Amino acid sequence: MTSTIRTQVAIVGAGPAGLLLSHLLDRQGISSVVIDKRSREEIEKTIRAGILEQGSVDVLVNTGVSDRVLRDGHKHDGIELRFQGEGHRIGFPSLVGRSVYLYPQHEVLIDLIASRLAAGADIRFSVSDSAIHGQHSNNPSVTFTDSEGEQWEVQADFIAGTDGSQGIAKWTIPEAERRDFFRPYPFAWFGILAEAPPSSEELIYSAGDNGFALISQRSDTVQRMYFQCDPTTDTAEWSDAQIWDELQSRVAGTELKEGNIFQKDVLQFRSYVCETMQYGRMFLAGDAAHTVPPTGAKGMNLAIADVLVLTDALTAYFDNGTTEKLDTYSETALKRIWRGQQFSYWMTSMLHATPEEHPFDRQRRYGELETVTSSVAGQTYLAEAYTGWPFDVGYN
Amino acid sequence: MTSTIRTQVAIVGAGPAGLLLSHLLDRQGISSVVIDKRSREEIEKTIRAGILEQGSVDVLVNTGVSDRVLRDGHKHDGIELRFQGEGHRIGFPSLVGRSVYLYPQHEVLIDLIASRLAAGADIRFSVSDSAIHGQHSNNPSVTFTDSEGEQWEVQADFIAGTDGSQGIAKWTIPEAERRDFFRPYPFAWFGILAEAPPSSEELIYSAGDNGFALISQRSDTVQRMYFQCDPTTDTAEWSDAQIWDELQSRVAGTELKEGNIFQKDVLQFRSYVCETMQYGRMFLAGDAAHTVPPTGAKGMNLAIADVLVLTDALTAYFDNGTTEKLDTYSETALKRIWRGQQFSYWMTSMLHATPEEHPFDRQRRYGELETVTSSVAGQTYLAEAYTGWPFDVGYN
Repeated sequence: MTSTIRTQVAIVGAGPAGLLLSHLLDRQGISSVVIDKRSREEIEKTIRAGILEQGSVDVLVNTGVSDRVLRDGHKHDGIELRFQGEGHRIGFPSLVGRSVYLYPQHEVLIDLIASRLAAGADIRFSVSDSAIHGQHSNNPSVTFTDSEGEQWEVQADFIAGTDGSQGIAKWTIPEAERRDFFRPYPFAWFGILAEAPPSSEELIYSAGDNGFALISQRSDTVQRMYFQCDPTTDTAEWSDAQIWDELQSRVAGTELKEGNIFQKDVLQFRSYVCETMQYGRMFLAGDAAHTVPPTGAKGMNLAIADVLVLTDALTAYFDNGTTEKLDTYSETALKRIWRGQQFSYWMTSMLHATPEEHPFDRQRRYGELETVTSSVAGQTYLAEAYTGWPFDVGYN
Repeated sequence: MTSTIRTQVAIVGAGPAGLLLSHLLDRQGISSVVIDKRSREEIEKTIRAGILEQGSVDVLVNTGVSDRVLRDGHKHDGIELRFQGEGHRIGFPSLVGRSVYLYPQHEVLIDLIASRLAAGADIRFSVSDSAIHGQHSNNPSVTFTDSEGEQWEVQADFIAGTDGSQGIAKWTIPEAERRDFFRPYPFAWFGILAEAPPSSEELIYSAGDNGFALISQRSDTVQRMYFQCDPTTDTAEWSDAQIWDELQSRVAGTELKEGNIFQKDVLQFRSYVCETMQYGRMFLAGDAAHTVPPTGAKGMNLAIADVLVLTDALTAYFDNGTTEKLDTYSETALKRIWRGQQFSYWMTSMLHATPEEHPFDRQRRYGELETVTSSVAGQTYLAEAYTGWPFDVGYN
């Protein structure tokens, strides 16, 4: 027996994109149901990275999702680019009048879930067998089995595919109507979480002859650091002492504050874009449609930007019955996405030595870092991207 | 029988670097002899490209080489970047307070030779069998056979290797003490010279799905245009009509003014840097030490920048006997050279589709062009490089 729910937008995936979409739609009086195969605990407890652009923070704060980001998040007024043994700070406020916030993604999710549930939203965690139907009909739907084993059908006007990079939504677009842009990288990041005080107030992006390192933070007592490694690296083969030595060697000049390493992982680098992001009445948003390497800190921010464009388009539809903005959603969103892909690629390629790097390119990279950091325009160009370009649409 | 000449600096190569060096040294009271295997006519008649940075023009004008550059050259206050069917002008004066001048290299050479000969300089054209000796002694020398078959030896305090990309000077540095940074590109430019009025007042750099094109100018009656081609292209296989069709297809939106094509050539793309640029008492400058792809219009400008640094260093030596600036010449010059290499590479890679280009990278390139052209900071960053960074040293 299948129970039926009727809503305006069925949202597949309770990540930042899906939950924020549900929230912003609600503010426009548009109903939604959100499903996710993960449990609420899994979603809230998986520690993830998170640099929020100023505009992303504004969305969360101004629409009432979170004031915790301003209280518990850390405002970062700059980053350091380090190369050839010297640090070069790029200070954001004086260049572009805005900053970024260190506020991990799982904290954003905790805020969004709390806010949504407080508003009485229908979110189904721990579902299985989810499937999307009838994208090209006027009555698309999502079916799933809930955590109790009960079968459900969500009948909706539209489907939002926000189920992340591993999700199913995009694969329901036939290959002939979809174009996958996929780019691998010949390296990865060895990441650690350590119980230690911060070694630096701001992020340090360090490009060294023996590889890249990123010194970042999670909180006053937990730090996140990375060093470039081979994608096949086995974290078990690295002792804590070896890891600290490796990190320390890559940020000569900064004494790292060491502590117990309680998580080690290898992050694979890939860039991916799915074109189109619309299939009939289904719309993709966030990681379901695109992933970036972490160097540019763009992942969650691109998801939020997608959601603003999609909310604006759905609102226009439900308010006026116009489909113009829905029809151009994919094109509008992709414009920013490709710029974000480029920025992420640029930061990655400028700062990393590939294993087979041509000696010419190494010197050229240092030349580029020199040009960017020695010029106010170069610094501003980078800071504009890092702190976030203006959104294409507003929000209410 | 060998005749001997005694001078302070023996200059091998009468290109822009060698002739300008001779000129600037003369202004400091330092003597030089310049030799070249080419005839004066060959040097002056070989039509070459030439965009001069504002600073390069200032050097030529302020040191009395040329006022013709201001009269006969064309001041360009911007360039156009065209992609996805739209042109985006980058106007220089409002962004960086300076411009560039279209003034071909052979015109600069005509000015330099006239100026040098009027000052009584010793320039030997059409020499053969030139060789460099004793770079690591205090008495280096250059030997050659003049156009009459007479043997000469130029005894000098220093040698300047300014004999261009095909020259011999750099190869006299033993392989163990030299590092060659060489980078080929998988494409070339098909270039034409045509008798026609300008199709555009300023340069158009057009990145199209079917390849790059550059619309540039030589004079009011002669135009220089290029389109990206395979390096093995045979110009003889292209009719004029085919060439105009190809060019026109790559700059849709601009109607090209056609005319008699009187020169067709294929320009190979390569980047090269020779480290070190000093070998004992021999110093390399200009194309003898580095070549760039033409996209960034940096070739002649980097040569002029080298010569300023070298003149400053030689002047310090002859005035005070100090070798500090000579000892750091290579390092100082290379800093700008690597930045110029990076800019040339950037302009090239942002605007060209390589034959095996990944679809991801094509979209990413358009994203980059969008970001650069839509941002004042991005435009300024590009304009700073195109119009020329400030020189590291001044000139008198």
